[in-house]
Amino acid sequence: MTDFVLDPKLRADTLEVTALPLCQVRLMNDRRFPWVVLVPARPDVSEILDLSVADRGLLIEEIALVSIVVRELFHPTKLNVGALGNVVAQLHVHVVGRFASDDAWPGPVWGTTTEPYRHDEIERRLAPLRYRLSASA
Amino acid sequence: MTDFVLDPKLRADTLEVTALPLCQVRLMNDRRFPWVVLVPARPDVSEILDLSVADRGLLIEEIALVSIVVRELFHPTKLNVGALGNVVAQLHVHVVGRFASDDAWPGPVWGTTTEPYRHDEIERRLAPLRYRLSASA
Repeated sequence: MTDFVLDPKLRADTLEVTALPLCQVRLMNDRRFPWVVLVPARPDVSEILDLSVADRGLLIEEIALVSIVVRELFHPTKLNVGALGNVVAQLHVHVVGRFASDDAWPGPVWGTTTEPYRHDEIERRLAPLRYRLSASA
Repeated sequence: MTDFVLDPKLRADTLEVTALPLCQVRLMNDRRFPWVVLVPARPDVSEILDLSVADRGLLIEEIALVSIVVRELFHPTKLNVGALGNVVAQLHVHVVGRFASDDAWPGPVWGTTTEPYRHDEIERRLAPLRYRLSASA
């Protein structure tokens, strides 16, 4: 058993938000959507079924917590939750606030071209997420 | 509080497999992928966060169970799990077996054009799913 190390592509594509009991919480560097990525800090896990029952219970509650925070901060039309991993196999769960007016609606966000945050936007997006998730953790 | 009624579009797009303690289990009528849809049999639920904590615990375990069965029956390269709901708001969770050789790889299956099963294929796909999920329930 090796230690958990965040996948290098996940690290490059996202910004650190905070850590919850199970997951590292990251923000996808895509200004089109409020798009959070939860990465269970467990080594050698690529599918939900690779987690223990206890960790699966933590995961679904951390998905719910992040969903509530994204909904309260950004008021999306709908939340999209997904664990795909066709490109990066390390288990990671997307929680994306979707809007009927957004670029990809009603299709999925995955497989579309991302649009990075501008430098001055990053902290404005990260700060409320950090504040709300740290208060809840 | 109204009774649970399966969304008419979900009903039309899928075939009945079985019922688990929380979810109705349906097969997406798309022969390109082994594609199971879990629909929590609870009224007025469109997001994971609308479920109770107990039901969320059931949901993640039913996702894991269906994932194990799809993996054992079809040996996919990767499982894709998603709850989107941009078109059908009633909460439903997709568990899709993906192959590096499939039509949509490495993109998502959602938003692509489905290819219905031929009549003679349907029971061959449904029977082993029903057998394995009924034995596990």
